[in-house]
Amino acid sequence: MTAAPRELPPKVTVLSGGVGGARFIQGVQRLRERTGSDTEITVIANTGDDIWLHGLKVCPDLDTVMYTLGDGIDTDRGWGRKDETWHAKEELAAYGVEPTWFGLGDRDLATHLVRTQMLDAGYPLSAVTEALCRRWLAPAHGQGLRLLPMSDDRVETHIVIDDPESGERRAVHFQEYWIRHQAAVPAHSVVAIGADKATPAPGVLEAIAAADLLVIAPSNPYVSIAPILAARGIRDAVAQRSVPCVAVSPLISGRAVKGPADQMLATLAGGTSPKHVARCYEGLIDALVVDESDVLDLEGLGSVRPIVARTLMRDADARRRLAATALGGVPA
Amino acid sequence: MTAAPRELPPKVTVLSGGVGGARFIQGVQRLRERTGSDTEITVIANTGDDIWLHGLKVCPDLDTVMYTLGDGIDTDRGWGRKDETWHAKEELAAYGVEPTWFGLGDRDLATHLVRTQMLDAGYPLSAVTEALCRRWLAPAHGQGLRLLPMSDDRVETHIVIDDPESGERRAVHFQEYWIRHQAAVPAHSVVAIGADKATPAPGVLEAIAAADLLVIAPSNPYVSIAPILAARGIRDAVAQRSVPCVAVSPLISGRAVKGPADQMLATLAGGTSPKHVARCYEGLIDALVVDESDVLDLEGLGSVRPIVARTLMRDADARRRLAATALGGVPA
Repeated sequence: MTAAPRELPPKVTVLSGGVGGARFIQGVQRLRERTGSDTEITVIANTGDDIWLHGLKVCPDLDTVMYTLGDGIDTDRGWGRKDETWHAKEELAAYGVEPTWFGLGDRDLATHLVRTQMLDAGYPLSAVTEALCRRWLAPAHGQGLRLLPMSDDRVETHIVIDDPESGERRAVHFQEYWIRHQAAVPAHSVVAIGADKATPAPGVLEAIAAADLLVIAPSNPYVSIAPILAARGIRDAVAQRSVPCVAVSPLISGRAVKGPADQMLATLAGGTSPKHVARCYEGLIDALVVDESDVLDLEGLGSVRPIVARTLMRDADARRRLAATALGGVPA
Repeated sequence: MTAAPRELPPKVTVLSGGVGGARFIQGVQRLRERTGSDTEITVIANTGDDIWLHGLKVCPDLDTVMYTLGDGIDTDRGWGRKDETWHAKEELAAYGVEPTWFGLGDRDLATHLVRTQMLDAGYPLSAVTEALCRRWLAPAHGQGLRLLPMSDDRVETHIVIDDPESGERRAVHFQEYWIRHQAAVPAHSVVAIGADKATPAPGVLEAIAAADLLVIAPSNPYVSIAPILAARGIRDAVAQRSVPCVAVSPLISGRAVKGPADQMLATLAGGTSPKHVARCYEGLIDALVVDESDVLDLEGLGSVRPIVARTLMRDADARRRLAATALGGVPA
């Protein structure tokens, strides 16, 4: 097989949340393989969703990216391991241990055990992630794909809600808002606790500075991307870029494929049009990939150039095509 | 149902290791139920087998007793949970994490997660064990059955072996000797590391002092019972008893039903006859229950009275009969 002419930017850095971001990056990766490109892809993943459960450190977005790219994901759910069983979870519930609303699968548990033990031994999350990726990314993708946590410091995204039981306004962990309450209560605001003191993980600012193209994956602007931008220096690094930055909207006809992005945009941004998405990234993006169903709703984007595409990532081809649009559709 | 006349001693305290001890205690428990007795049974379990694996505190003997009495045990293996799966173990191996020779089942993991999290929160092992037993013992057995770890302090039984690979003499954790090397290498000596500084757990000395009958379960004298006796004050408390103490030999025709007791007695006690078992408990027992197959080999027992019985605990009836022999066959 001969390598096709290099068409992709040599270095692409992607800011990503969980399911949507992981699927998009899988598309980038497939595009890279198909074009025979040696593009270096660096993924900076949100860790604001991270949560300690049953004494274990769980990093949903890192794991979703890792499992998706390493072909270990449950493709139907979009998260967790394929061929998963839930016996430990059943037993934890039988012990009466809270919380019962978050499901750790038996296979998935191994990841959290390895991670927690390494963290306890003093390794930073970035080193742990690198070690875990030796299993998931290195065999399939060689050195061309790196996954970095946004920070080694603890950041927790909390959502201010009115508690459905007590009626009191309180801040709950994003996972509690999303998994336990199924985002059925309005999100009054989002706070990335610890972000103001969080230092970007080793390599993060360097990957932003070295990139030929920055991409914001189709992830929730409030709970997936904002926490990354909130870590010290990351927003400034993106704002001061000398290369293009393109975001992919996570909404199709104003609806999220998965997750509470649409509810949150409606409440917190005042709407779910492309302009509302673009407003979340004010000063940070040059182009916004929007779904073709939103083609009649492209007002108010200002200097952000709309790129219209089919954004539903139903299968591998759709993911690759969306990646090609995002990576090729920017002014070079 | 009317209560049968009380025939069992009101308070029985049993020193126990894992599988053999657990099955024997199940027999005691069934005897208690059948006779309608309100005998209080206190089990003091060995914790010298305990091991930290993948960041989790694993207490094999406590768990074997707990699962056996709570009907959660895999009855064929004698240890671990019934209907168990091994997915987390597979995944840990896929990460290349050592050790791979110790199998933590998915259901079993939940116990270790709960335990580890409670220990991390500052609860002593005895309080953790009490909490876990609320699930396993309380529903089935009410307040009549208590399970205590011998100590809240860390004790680890190590076995001095000649390493089969390097040939060097070294001390390995009992689990490594037994599970990894399958006891296929001679045990030169046994050291209960930490035992000299270990304080008996709350209730242990009290249960020995308050007992109307002390029982040493059919467990390995060297690695199950000796570590219990080695914790500060326990050996003295048994030696200074004013009530009978009966041991049940774990050997049948000089062979262990399970575990390395026979190899260890052969090497460390010079033989596997009843007198060699009795010698392990010198000054501590008044009677020794031996299998009927050993009836021609009862010399050298000194003041220890032999009680001959069928000791193979094949089923519930056999366990109950052996318990009846041990509890009733002592001079009251």
